Amino acid sequence: MTGPAIEQLRMQLAELWDLRRACAVLQWDQSTMMPPLGASQRAEQIATLERIAHERSSSDRLGELIGAAEGELDGLPSDAMEVRLVAEARRLHEKDRRVPVELAVARSREASRGYAVWVKARAAGDFSAFAGALERNFRLVRDYIACFDDYEDPYDVVLDDFAPGMRTAQVSRLFAELRSALRPLIAELGDRAIDMSPLHVEFPVSGQRRLVDRVLGWMGFDPAAWRLDDTVHPFESSFSVTDVRLTTRYELSHFPTALYGAMHECGHGLYEAGVAPDLQRTPLGTIRSSAVHESQSRLWENMVGRSRAFCGALTPALIEHSQGRLDGLRPDALFRAVNAVRPSTIRIEADETTYGLHIVIRFELERRLLAGDLSVAELPEAWNSLMLEYLGVRVASDAEGVLQDVHWSEGLVGYFPTYAIGNLIAAQLWERAQADIPDLDAQLADHRLGPLREWLREQVHRHGSRYSDPQLLDRVVGGPVEVGPFINHLRRKLGEVYELDLA
Amino acid sequence: MTGPAIEQLRMQLAELWDLRRACAVLQWDQSTMMPPLGASQRAEQIATLERIAHERSSSDRLGELIGAAEGELDGLPSDAMEVRLVAEARRLHEKDRRVPVELAVARSREASRGYAVWVKARAAGDFSAFAGALERNFRLVRDYIACFDDYEDPYDVVLDDFAPGMRTAQVSRLFAELRSALRPLIAELGDRAIDMSPLHVEFPVSGQRRLVDRVLGWMGFDPAAWRLDDTVHPFESSFSVTDVRLTTRYELSHFPTALYGAMHECGHGLYEAGVAPDLQRTPLGTIRSSAVHESQSRLWENMVGRSRAFCGALTPALIEHSQGRLDGLRPDALFRAVNAVRPSTIRIEADETTYGLHIVIRFELERRLLAGDLSVAELPEAWNSLMLEYLGVRVASDAEGVLQDVHWSEGLVGYFPTYAIGNLIAAQLWERAQADIPDLDAQLADHRLGPLREWLREQVHRHGSRYSDPQLLDRVVGGPVEVGPFINHLRRKLGEVYELDLA
Repeated sequence: MTGPAIEQLRMQLAELWDLRRACAVLQWDQSTMMPPLGASQRAEQIATLERIAHERSSSDRLGELIGAAEGELDGLPSDAMEVRLVAEARRLHEKDRRVPVELAVARSREASRGYAVWVKARAAGDFSAFAGALERNFRLVRDYIACFDDYEDPYDVVLDDFAPGMRTAQVSRLFAELRSALRPLIAELGDRAIDMSPLHVEFPVSGQRRLVDRVLGWMGFDPAAWRLDDTVHPFESSFSVTDVRLTTRYELSHFPTALYGAMHECGHGLYEAGVAPDLQRTPLGTIRSSAVHESQSRLWENMVGRSRAFCGALTPALIEHSQGRLDGLRPDALFRAVNAVRPSTIRIEADETTYGLHIVIRFELERRLLAGDLSVAELPEAWNSLMLEYLGVRVASDAEGVLQDVHWSEGLVGYFPTYAIGNLIAAQLWERAQADIPDLDAQLADHRLGPLREWLREQVHRHGSRYSDPQLLDRVVGGPVEVGPFINHLRRKLGEVYELDLA
Repeated sequence: MTGPAIEQLRMQLAELWDLRRACAVLQWDQSTMMPPLGASQRAEQIATLERIAHERSSSDRLGELIGAAEGELDGLPSDAMEVRLVAEARRLHEKDRRVPVELAVARSREASRGYAVWVKARAAGDFSAFAGALERNFRLVRDYIACFDDYEDPYDVVLDDFAPGMRTAQVSRLFAELRSALRPLIAELGDRAIDMSPLHVEFPVSGQRRLVDRVLGWMGFDPAAWRLDDTVHPFESSFSVTDVRLTTRYELSHFPTALYGAMHECGHGLYEAGVAPDLQRTPLGTIRSSAVHESQSRLWENMVGRSRAFCGALTPALIEHSQGRLDGLRPDALFRAVNAVRPSTIRIEADETTYGLHIVIRFELERRLLAGDLSVAELPEAWNSLMLEYLGVRVASDAEGVLQDVHWSEGLVGYFPTYAIGNLIAAQLWERAQADIPDLDAQLADHRLGPLREWLREQVHRHGSRYSDPQLLDRVVGGPVEVGPFINHLRRKLGEVYELDLA
């Protein structure tokens, strides 16, 4: 029996949920369907929904309702759904009420503007055209941080938006460990010969589409509840557990872009589709942790998609759909090519091993930018020099350097670390899944992905945001985020790829 | 110089606009993109936006702002933009504040539900499965009417939502005149032989798509600002003057469905795209009058699309895109087939002449249902008997009878008349356009549609909802809605089609 205040609170929160979902529909449409000239009015529409949502979530009325609901929780265990729900509502309310609505709206608007400026500047490879928008977005992030005072490190404030409860100091420690484990591994393997030619055949896009449809079907894509569309910068969004939208993009001479990109987004989609339906329209129904979210996409993309076993399932499908271009492909050749360690300038094309260093670089740079230790004007130089130092690659132009990512243009600061932390968590979950599902390899080789999906649903997905990241990890893997399992996973796999003893 | 209250009012109204546009995006997505299982949560999202919009538009705060703004209008001429804007805001506010928010939300929700019930009931041809939803929707319409008291006829209230300022008595008079002009014309021509076979060739859908793209291009479809998508029940929607969404559907063996359907929706789109950009985000930027809206779609579909001159432009395109199926087609044969008078059971497939009687029947039936003179159970029988009486056709099943239209399932009562009134207005505008653009026929024959489009933009589109229907008509054609020009147009055209002296 829930009390009347909890019921009233639920109704208020359900409306907030609807507003946020409506906003997500507008954003999805903008990225997939909207004619280009629709952009400026769309920015207004999104800003208005953002304003209304922020006004409501920060309102005194909501605060009073939360207080009254808290009064109805006496005697309930601390992990009761109502307790979690009210606590999450309190947490989000306390954050939002510190942020003036005008600042929230300004951030939304500047995100739309920054994005538009970035698209043009990147196409022109002109950092100076982007500098102003970047400056404005970082200034707004600083204004946002200034609304808070309960942190050890200013960066904690933005990190908490994407990895609730995680601290900068913890990320720094993890990243230091990750960096020192990855750099020697990359130095050892980065030059060794691997035949990459299977990845660069001309693979007709129509065939790639059929390939992607087939693989997503194995993963659990349900046409009655899911869509897949083309976009420039792939993402996943969902508007309910039975309305999941994936996007991908196709490159004629690099099929992994679409294939692994789609598996990645489908991993996100399975997470959102797997949340218990009765958490919908509550704050527990949205996945707050980008880190855990990313663990799901990475697990499907890398642990499953690039495994030796699944490469065995992929190979016949690749041969069938590539219209003769991949005749004679051997699973082993695919496995080696998709796992080759190849330091490069572009994050989203990076292999699983070098990827982490791309993130470490961004984390270090955005902290220095925020702290004012680095100016926007100095950023390209700093970017290029870290790329050389950590990855040993020379950046030929800003388009393939500092301009490559969309995030900063939209004021997304504190987001990048979750990509690498997601990789770490994915490896921890993968260890656990392998222990719990003894014939997992045989299933992957046979593209029977249902048992793994159901294991993830049971362990992770269905809980939505019911548990904090530490609580969830503690339940599933018995401890906090660690670097070890990820490095073990890499060394084991790369040992097979390179026929070396790395474990 | 606008005063501070007007400025504040503008900001409030702009947010209301954004909310309504966001709602329209959600509805468009629902009809074109959404996976079927997304429906129930989408209904919640739309209901929440509807609730927030209604709360705001009916709020005391908005009323006070409008009052303050009215105080700043002294000395301005009655057709000044600010005067019109504040007056339209007042009109809409006064309507909305009479309607309790719970009733507005209930109507939105029951519309979503009724639609879903109707889709199934129509597919099954089972009126009894639909009766409950129809009952509930009509009950909510009655509850809505009961919120008002300043009418001559209860039907005035719903009519005013779609044809502001128009009265039931006026529609009754127009429809009586229309009915008595159409029935003898149909009786005289309905049996005469016309070769309809060109319309029923197997026309590959890929070719139909190219044909439609080409014709919409002539009309002014701009891919940078417009989209065309497939749907089951075609409609047009727009989210700004540079974000216009058309939909159509394709029938393999009846190309006019897609071709004329797309021209119809494009006519709507040109209207919304043609509104002066500075009226956006004000109440004058939305077209309130479905009657004038329909005059635009009908003008393009019928006056242009089915004219002898434009059939001359269409014929080579039809031959080119039909992949051999229409080789040897003559413009005259096309002109005769697309204008043949053929009484039939389905409104949306009706020819321009019989169409009006389909509307008269619906107008009579919905008034009797509202008044309680007819029960939902008696409706199918009454429908079939009027179809026989007015059009001489026997309805074989409810699927092609009372279940054919979506409107009542969504509580849209008072909407149907605007279709026929739109035809009347279209003919009045067409007379005027022919007088103002002397070589119009030559332009149509050469698919130069720009001058007509610009004439309509200048006379009608750019004003948005700045003028009431009577004011607008008075400006452009010098008088109120009339039946005469429409009947003259038909008699002239049908005289050519049937080679008779009908004028």
